[in-house]
Amino acid sequence: MKLYDGGRAPNPRRVRVFLVEKGISVPLHSIDMAALEHRGAAMTALNPMGELPVLELDDGTIITESIAICRYFEAWHPEPALFGRTPLEIATIEMWQRRIELRLMNVIGQVFRHTHPGMAKAEVPQVPEWGEANRPRVAAFMSLLDGHLAERSFICGDAISVADITGMIAVDFTKPARIAVPPELENLHRWHAMMKARPSAVA
Amino acid sequence: MKLYDGGRAPNPRRVRVFLVEKGISVPLHSIDMAALEHRGAAMTALNPMGELPVLELDDGTIITESIAICRYFEAWHPEPALFGRTPLEIATIEMWQRRIELRLMNVIGQVFRHTHPGMAKAEVPQVPEWGEANRPRVAAFMSLLDGHLAERSFICGDAISVADITGMIAVDFTKPARIAVPPELENLHRWHAMMKARPSAVA
Repeated sequence: MKLYDGGRAPNPRRVRVFLVEKGISVPLHSIDMAALEHRGAAMTALNPMGELPVLELDDGTIITESIAICRYFEAWHPEPALFGRTPLEIATIEMWQRRIELRLMNVIGQVFRHTHPGMAKAEVPQVPEWGEANRPRVAAFMSLLDGHLAERSFICGDAISVADITGMIAVDFTKPARIAVPPELENLHRWHAMMKARPSAVA
Repeated sequence: MKLYDGGRAPNPRRVRVFLVEKGISVPLHSIDMAALEHRGAAMTALNPMGELPVLELDDGTIITESIAICRYFEAWHPEPALFGRTPLEIATIEMWQRRIELRLMNVIGQVFRHTHPGMAKAEVPQVPEWGEANRPRVAAFMSLLDGHLAERSFICGDAISVADITGMIAVDFTKPARIAVPPELENLHRWHAMMKARPSAVA
């Protein structure tokens, strides 16, 4: 088994943090995203999407999409459960994982890709107006998440889940995207600091 | 239990088709999306995202996000399994469900929202340049999916999965988005016709 990895980019990091939280070790093979190696012939032969991470099983089977890779490991190693156990836990974690991914992490991604000069080569065409249109959406969701965290230690209750992992990485992603996290969002800052204090955060 | 439903919009329909395939009946409560009722005070009190569908359980618990709602029902009623059973099935179905949702359905959605005059009121700001930038991405993914379907009856092998449901709805979504499905994509057309012939397609 081999995990093609992409360094500091949010999605590859999501899977590495997940693996540390699960206590699973997988051999990594580093791909140079700055040099667009993930879009080259060798990697697009494995993943036509030209994205990372990519999991290659021993028989050559390929699994792409961060959350699909995480679910593969969760199915083999159910504990600690990061996708929930009961129907309501499973649905609640999926709901928040998706809200955070689609309405925070990926929206920050649109700001980053469409406004950052360093992304001009990778994002064609860059549409600055679209990047800017996403800034207020980031702010609105961070505020909503702050309110949600007022009554909870973790995003889905008393235990860490994959929603917290996506959330931590989304908040970290504000830095390269040059988006400020308002200091008055105290619950969000408290939860983020707690996540960053976990050993998995350095993965 | 009550499912707040949004008529012909892709996400509400996704859940209805899923429920028919599972053989589950849930009382529907119709929300008028054309009148933006889903963004009104009553609905945003249930789902601050202002989106449909929304599942309300008998104790008032709210589950949003189509796939989270589908997973809730799958957890209570495992058969027929539409999210897979083995670790590899679970991962493969999640991979394709996500690829199709994120790189086809939602990309068609960007074309629709940012180029269709009828969406000017709901999508603020409309960024036509961004809508147009997504057209070639739709074409590229449809071509990839056509190649994938050359060797399979369903997207993940011999049985229907949630990936096929998202796929059928994505292809149907090309019509209001005014995107042509190239006639030479014969595998895609064959698979889509097969899906449209199932009783669930009219849901």
